[in-house]
Amino acid sequence: QTALVLAMLFMSLTTAVSVPSDQIFQYIEEHQDEYVQRLKDWVAIESDSTDPEKRHLVINMMLLAEERIRKLGGTVEMVDLDMQELPNGNKISLPPVILANIVKDPKKPTVCFYGHMDVQPAKIEDGWSTEPYILTEKNGNLYGRGASDDKGQVLAVLNAIEALQKHELPVNVKILLEGMEEVGSIGLNTLVKQRNSTFFSDVDYIVVTDSAWLSNKPGITYGTRGICYFFIECAKRDLHSGSFGGILHEAMNDLIFLLDTLVDSSGHILIPGIYEAVAPLTEKEKKLYEGIEYDLDQIMAKYGLEEFRNKTKEELLMQRSRYPSLSIHGIEGAFSAPGAKTVIPAKVTGKFSIRLVPNMEPSVVEKQVTDYLNKKFTELNSPNSIKVASDTGSKPWLSDINEPQYLAARKAIKRVFGKEADMIRAGGTIPIATHFQEVTRKSIMLLGIGGPDDASHGQDEKISRYNFIEGTKLYAAFLQELATV
Amino acid sequence: QTALVLAMLFMSLTTAVSVPSDQIFQYIEEHQDEYVQRLKDWVAIESDSTDPEKRHLVINMMLLAEERIRKLGGTVEMVDLDMQELPNGNKISLPPVILANIVKDPKKPTVCFYGHMDVQPAKIEDGWSTEPYILTEKNGNLYGRGASDDKGQVLAVLNAIEALQKHELPVNVKILLEGMEEVGSIGLNTLVKQRNSTFFSDVDYIVVTDSAWLSNKPGITYGTRGICYFFIECAKRDLHSGSFGGILHEAMNDLIFLLDTLVDSSGHILIPGIYEAVAPLTEKEKKLYEGIEYDLDQIMAKYGLEEFRNKTKEELLMQRSRYPSLSIHGIEGAFSAPGAKTVIPAKVTGKFSIRLVPNMEPSVVEKQVTDYLNKKFTELNSPNSIKVASDTGSKPWLSDINEPQYLAARKAIKRVFGKEADMIRAGGTIPIATHFQEVTRKSIMLLGIGGPDDASHGQDEKISRYNFIEGTKLYAAFLQELATV
Repeated sequence: QTALVLAMLFMSLTTAVSVPSDQIFQYIEEHQDEYVQRLKDWVAIESDSTDPEKRHLVINMMLLAEERIRKLGGTVEMVDLDMQELPNGNKISLPPVILANIVKDPKKPTVCFYGHMDVQPAKIEDGWSTEPYILTEKNGNLYGRGASDDKGQVLAVLNAIEALQKHELPVNVKILLEGMEEVGSIGLNTLVKQRNSTFFSDVDYIVVTDSAWLSNKPGITYGTRGICYFFIECAKRDLHSGSFGGILHEAMNDLIFLLDTLVDSSGHILIPGIYEAVAPLTEKEKKLYEGIEYDLDQIMAKYGLEEFRNKTKEELLMQRSRYPSLSIHGIEGAFSAPGAKTVIPAKVTGKFSIRLVPNMEPSVVEKQVTDYLNKKFTELNSPNSIKVASDTGSKPWLSDINEPQYLAARKAIKRVFGKEADMIRAGGTIPIATHFQEVTRKSIMLLGIGGPDDASHGQDEKISRYNFIEGTKLYAAFLQELATV
Repeated sequence: QTALVLAMLFMSLTTAVSVPSDQIFQYIEEHQDEYVQRLKDWVAIESDSTDPEKRHLVINMMLLAEERIRKLGGTVEMVDLDMQELPNGNKISLPPVILANIVKDPKKPTVCFYGHMDVQPAKIEDGWSTEPYILTEKNGNLYGRGASDDKGQVLAVLNAIEALQKHELPVNVKILLEGMEEVGSIGLNTLVKQRNSTFFSDVDYIVVTDSAWLSNKPGITYGTRGICYFFIECAKRDLHSGSFGGILHEAMNDLIFLLDTLVDSSGHILIPGIYEAVAPLTEKEKKLYEGIEYDLDQIMAKYGLEEFRNKTKEELLMQRSRYPSLSIHGIEGAFSAPGAKTVIPAKVTGKFSIRLVPNMEPSVVEKQVTDYLNKKFTELNSPNSIKVASDTGSKPWLSDINEPQYLAARKAIKRVFGKEADMIRAGGTIPIATHFQEVTRKSIMLLGIGGPDDASHGQDEKISRYNFIEGTKLYAAFLQELATV
């Protein structure tokens, strides 16, 4: 009987593989103008989640996405979340979250795509070359807010499903779309927990669309750094530097002293123990960085940088993704406006963060930092007081690149682009990835089709027509390969 | 003939002395309620110079002061200044400056009083216990915006003149009142220069009313510190700490490093050469600090301070007034709002100032600071760039306490209060004092009657009835003594 099951399984797999991918790619190419038109319709809706006055537009956008999914034969649940409380105390509706389901065959694996329908603010006065909410094609690029982050990527997934459906959708697909990503995915964590034993119970793989490649070479992101954000508050009364300058131990001096003890001039973090937990570099991992396409000179030119601390591509990529870093962000409570003011600030709060990598634990890092700063402060022998606090840290996230969906994505990239995928670890923190992993314990992957210069949150956001269309092929090929791994 | 002139001069002097001061003091006491009513009328006018929409009220206030001076028989010139350009480009009228002249006897010395009629903003919602523009008496204090700074002090001068006039005004008096002091005396410097050879030509002494005592013991201020305000700009591009944290030499780290090289933990300025120009302490000067009433414990309790850097009153007063100090005020361009943001600021400007004392020259200090910071920055070996800039510095101001008007003021304090005056050097910078000295080369003195806890710019500003009335006697006695020195 086992033999029979295996045989059936084999048949089902071969059936999937036997779908003529050339025909699907051709179908996608032939329909590209239709896809661009759909993107134009989506970009036209100013679904800016940062502005409460545009909340109805975010909701409209969710309804438009719902319609598109229904056209694919999906069942869609529009989940209402709690109200959002604004800083002024008013409450407004959160956009619904879409939980959708396309076909249901228990024999096939199920992949759940995550994406978001909201965008960052954009106004032509900010310096856009084109109207941000009118998708405009120039030199092979499709300019518009949300074109890359994340409407274009979500639409590529839906278009890929549609193309596959002309023959057969080889796996089960679920879709989770939210409308509050740009303001911290309000309400989503709770929803994921609530639906963990229902919506997520039969999910095998979660694919986050919302990501970009490091270069023009397609990449798959298999890890992100975590973060601990710290606040050092030094306190005293607000005083005038004329009357009190020189006779007091000033809070600002204490803070500057403490902030200056955090890293040395090479960027090495001086807090004892910080590097102890960092997972050692294996030869296998080291090899991964060699193949990645990343041109230091080009990046420096693009961002107007004089130099990087790291001399080689490999060192830089490792520093950026697999080693911790510490950045000082600013000081609250001191004089920060233009001009000259002679206040001696009373209570100043220095802010810095440490990006965490496997196997650093936020709670351990918090203790190391707090102990270190308190010790340094004691050495200072100041009559002032300090308070070290930290945000709830985010753990780093790291997947195994040999999980089935990674193998499927790598094969798909090879098929569509004819090259090996860059295996990327992002320097930033993608809380939703960490959260999906912690709650669902499923295999998580970031398979995005954004280019390295899409300016997601900036002016002139775009996705290239190439990335949009080849990316659609990539998602189609990925779903095919996923059925065979 | 010389003998005759001398004899006449002697007669005129003895006449002045012969005015029965007890009668004048009694007259002042008997009229105190009238004086308080006048102050009430003045406080009622919201002459807030910081708010362009209240400019007409500042002008009304100048007209009210004009009327009061005319009642003393003074000739008053209302000098129109140029328009003020607001940050939005609009232009509004500046209030006129009052240049007044009371009696003219070339045989007598001429003293010019300086004061201002404008006030800081005040609203009951800011935490006032009483309506700020309704003068309210409670427990011997007269609460109201401007009661001490500076309406009460100017009115005390005018009331003293009126009381003396019942007998004879012993010296020539000129009065300069402005309406833009709280926003930097816009237009006044130019006017002082323009009138240096006319209005100021026959002025022997300039008395600035706008000052306060260090304790309940009356004091005369004979010096202020100057100031140099510095800006260190460290520049790079704005970047995200996720993508770039660790691989760049961050501008903020450079700035923190530089700011941490300015003073040691005891407040000693580490910039080479800074202390070289400081005038050495003489035994005579040292003695002056011993007599000053200044209760460290009381001040600490009042401001909620744990301790001062200096253990004795003398050390503290000297550090505050005759030694330089350096305070770090803040950082522009970094993240300064509440909350957590993971930006790597691109261009940050650190701001600090050095209070200058005789014989420090702003231009020398500017060079010392710039050289030092550039040298330190070179040691840091950073690929970023810095730019050190400074505001036009203000020189310190110091008078000789043996100038005739100081002797007169000291005698007057002895007569009215029965004690020796505290001879004060202020820690702050009073640009108008420096400016009067530099342009007119006259003897300048700060003879104020504000108490140590009048909260000039704060909530519940007040002048005590005691300071207001005894202060009126002080100005009367001072004018009498001035005729005899």
